[in-house]
Amino acid sequence: MTAAAPVRVGVLGAGVVGSQVVRLLREQGADLAARIGAPLELAGVAVRRPHRHPDIPADLLTTDAAALVARPDVDVVVEVIGGTRPTKDLLLTALRRGAGVVTANKALLAEEGPELYEAADLAGTDLYFEAAVAGAIPLIRPLRESLAGDRITRILGIVNGTTNFVLSAMTAGGDSYEYALKEATRLGYAEADPTADVDGFDAAAKAAILASVGFHTRVGAADVHREGISRVTAADVAAAADIGCVVKLLAICERIRRPDGGESVSARVHPVMLPRTHPLAVVDGAYNAVYVEAESAGRLMFYGPGAGGAPTASAVLGDLVAVARNRVAGGRGPRESAYADLPVESIGSVPARYHISLDVDDRAGVLAAVASAFAEAGVSISTVRQQGRGRDAALVVVTHSAPDADLASTVATLHQLPAVHRVTSVMRVMGEVA
Amino acid sequence: MTAAAPVRVGVLGAGVVGSQVVRLLREQGADLAARIGAPLELAGVAVRRPHRHPDIPADLLTTDAAALVARPDVDVVVEVIGGTRPTKDLLLTALRRGAGVVTANKALLAEEGPELYEAADLAGTDLYFEAAVAGAIPLIRPLRESLAGDRITRILGIVNGTTNFVLSAMTAGGDSYEYALKEATRLGYAEADPTADVDGFDAAAKAAILASVGFHTRVGAADVHREGISRVTAADVAAAADIGCVVKLLAICERIRRPDGGESVSARVHPVMLPRTHPLAVVDGAYNAVYVEAESAGRLMFYGPGAGGAPTASAVLGDLVAVARNRVAGGRGPRESAYADLPVESIGSVPARYHISLDVDDRAGVLAAVASAFAEAGVSISTVRQQGRGRDAALVVVTHSAPDADLASTVATLHQLPAVHRVTSVMRVMGEVA
Repeated sequence: MTAAAPVRVGVLGAGVVGSQVVRLLREQGADLAARIGAPLELAGVAVRRPHRHPDIPADLLTTDAAALVARPDVDVVVEVIGGTRPTKDLLLTALRRGAGVVTANKALLAEEGPELYEAADLAGTDLYFEAAVAGAIPLIRPLRESLAGDRITRILGIVNGTTNFVLSAMTAGGDSYEYALKEATRLGYAEADPTADVDGFDAAAKAAILASVGFHTRVGAADVHREGISRVTAADVAAAADIGCVVKLLAICERIRRPDGGESVSARVHPVMLPRTHPLAVVDGAYNAVYVEAESAGRLMFYGPGAGGAPTASAVLGDLVAVARNRVAGGRGPRESAYADLPVESIGSVPARYHISLDVDDRAGVLAAVASAFAEAGVSISTVRQQGRGRDAALVVVTHSAPDADLASTVATLHQLPAVHRVTSVMRVMGEVA
Repeated sequence: MTAAAPVRVGVLGAGVVGSQVVRLLREQGADLAARIGAPLELAGVAVRRPHRHPDIPADLLTTDAAALVARPDVDVVVEVIGGTRPTKDLLLTALRRGAGVVTANKALLAEEGPELYEAADLAGTDLYFEAAVAGAIPLIRPLRESLAGDRITRILGIVNGTTNFVLSAMTAGGDSYEYALKEATRLGYAEADPTADVDGFDAAAKAAILASVGFHTRVGAADVHREGISRVTAADVAAAADIGCVVKLLAICERIRRPDGGESVSARVHPVMLPRTHPLAVVDGAYNAVYVEAESAGRLMFYGPGAGGAPTASAVLGDLVAVARNRVAGGRGPRESAYADLPVESIGSVPARYHISLDVDDRAGVLAAVASAFAEAGVSISTVRQQGRGRDAALVVVTHSAPDADLASTVATLHQLPAVHRVTSVMRVMGEVA
């Protein structure tokens, strides 16, 4: 089998992931060759500072990424540098001349996916990106291949390890957001500038990819409603615990049936209160997990390490084996499937349920005033709990499902009510809560 | 895209799974066509009693399965009748003339896989079998494609819903095995003749498939050491709870490093005491889950419904889309990968840890006698707990890891010791137990 000509691989980047990819390519050559039917050969590694990579043979290192991707002897380009510029142009160069591409670049795919897919299509070559979502957890392949005969209705994912670590710490220790983030930074779970993680940009890019693949439509990063965790308070976490929930930052992709009978999709990232009995509720620390509901398959969950050099490299190499095998055996992997062409709902029209805690005057008539605010917005209340607290009382309201915009405007109204001293916690809830 | 010639499908069987496959093929035709690039067309359905299938057009029904698989206009054969005779010959006929095959038949694959693979290979066609293990849970594709660039070291699976349901009931209610099985039968979770499930045959076939795919080697059903759940007692379940464990029937596939530096694999099915903190411990009822450890990816878990008509049909249709797409676009899916050609360890040499409960005389010297039995077999004890009970005392021993044969012979010796009244529970344990 291994008599076939080698498949030559150019790697862009030798950082946390790239260095593992290079190591594994060299250590597991025999296994990979047997699985592909031809040896993989490292043709070059593009890095910024060659002297920082003494473990890679000097003649393989180059600072000229543009030249590497244009080399006619490079059959597959592995991209693990991230960013969208100049990465997009590098990958377009590779795809247009018919090279296969394996990328872990969620931001690039979420923003420029269609142009890359089109280039791959025109050249009849492969674009694989398992590593872009949830690290080593096989997810893209299950969604676009294993479930290709099913109708996915919903994807819920814990797809950002940093925020999950912070929220887990807040839940376990009652820590403030600021303290938990500081701990995460100290332990290496958060970057010095944590914006991409804590503000939900990273999760939103992944949500765009999951929604696109799962629903056979195009959802870009800009289509994803995004709220991060920086405004989650210890009070929110405590309020969640009071109703048997934990707070998680979820990427939520849903197929929505519109009143007119048509279909749309929603893709969003925001914190939710999730019942402790939900399979995702027990996913703690830096782990990732994605929960998928499909009409025939039912409820599936995929769980594993969502980041890290070696796990991400595992996903990259799995794709590399697939692309190389396709080149050796003929054929191609699945192309972009966006035929469904579904509109994306704005957050305001998506059905949601809210949990709202209020500090209010402890006197008759307050509940009536609060209840009226909900009623006027057409929002139906599921449960109210009233707790006396000396001078003040607290009201905890969980609503029935209503359009998100109506819920948000109700919260705005509550802020204005004279009897309401403070809105102490507002968060969406999922699933059956007490 | 859908201008391509239809891909014509012959279905063998229209039982619980087959009827769902036929229904979905007809209901989701437009979606499937868009994903494949050509319409799927139902060419025929082979059944035993056509009058029992009024929902399938009469002109599609046939009782002649052999003729259906031989028809040159049938491009892909979907096999959901089960059994090995005459199923094997039917599938060989289809493969040899170049038709693709999608099967959910774990027993056939575990017993006759190599011959089927070889026929597929010679004809250059596809043999897919995602539905054969753990129903709708994408598992075969993740193992043989997503993790193709990694080294899998261990696969632990709850792959039989009937036995998991029975063990969950015994755990939750303290029920006897007999009572729990009766309940499972009444509720439809166990068949009238539950032998294939409770004696571990079903799980052993799946273990053979998982080990073969995961370790790139050949493991047949006969290579799998098999112990079912029929001897699990309420005392075992209680003893497990005492050390923070639950009893699960696991399919266990391990890569083993031999003292000589070589590698082998072990594939076995038996009840184990598993710590409650293990991700598999919380998988209850008829659900399935498979836990995979790989060198780079780390620890992954896949969870979902392991059986049922619609979930299994989802897996079958995912494969059907893949096979049809390969026919339309050119190319083939992955072939059998058995290059590693690893020997299979016999159960006796596999490292294991045992939990053993004994009723013994409550007098000095008994512990010494028992400890000697372990020492003589070279088995090291991890913990001993001694509990007085009036005339009797109970000893609970958890061993360190030792070859299974040495542990088994120690148990045999214990049965002979005059001070030992009764061996009340013997079971292997996995993971860190108290």
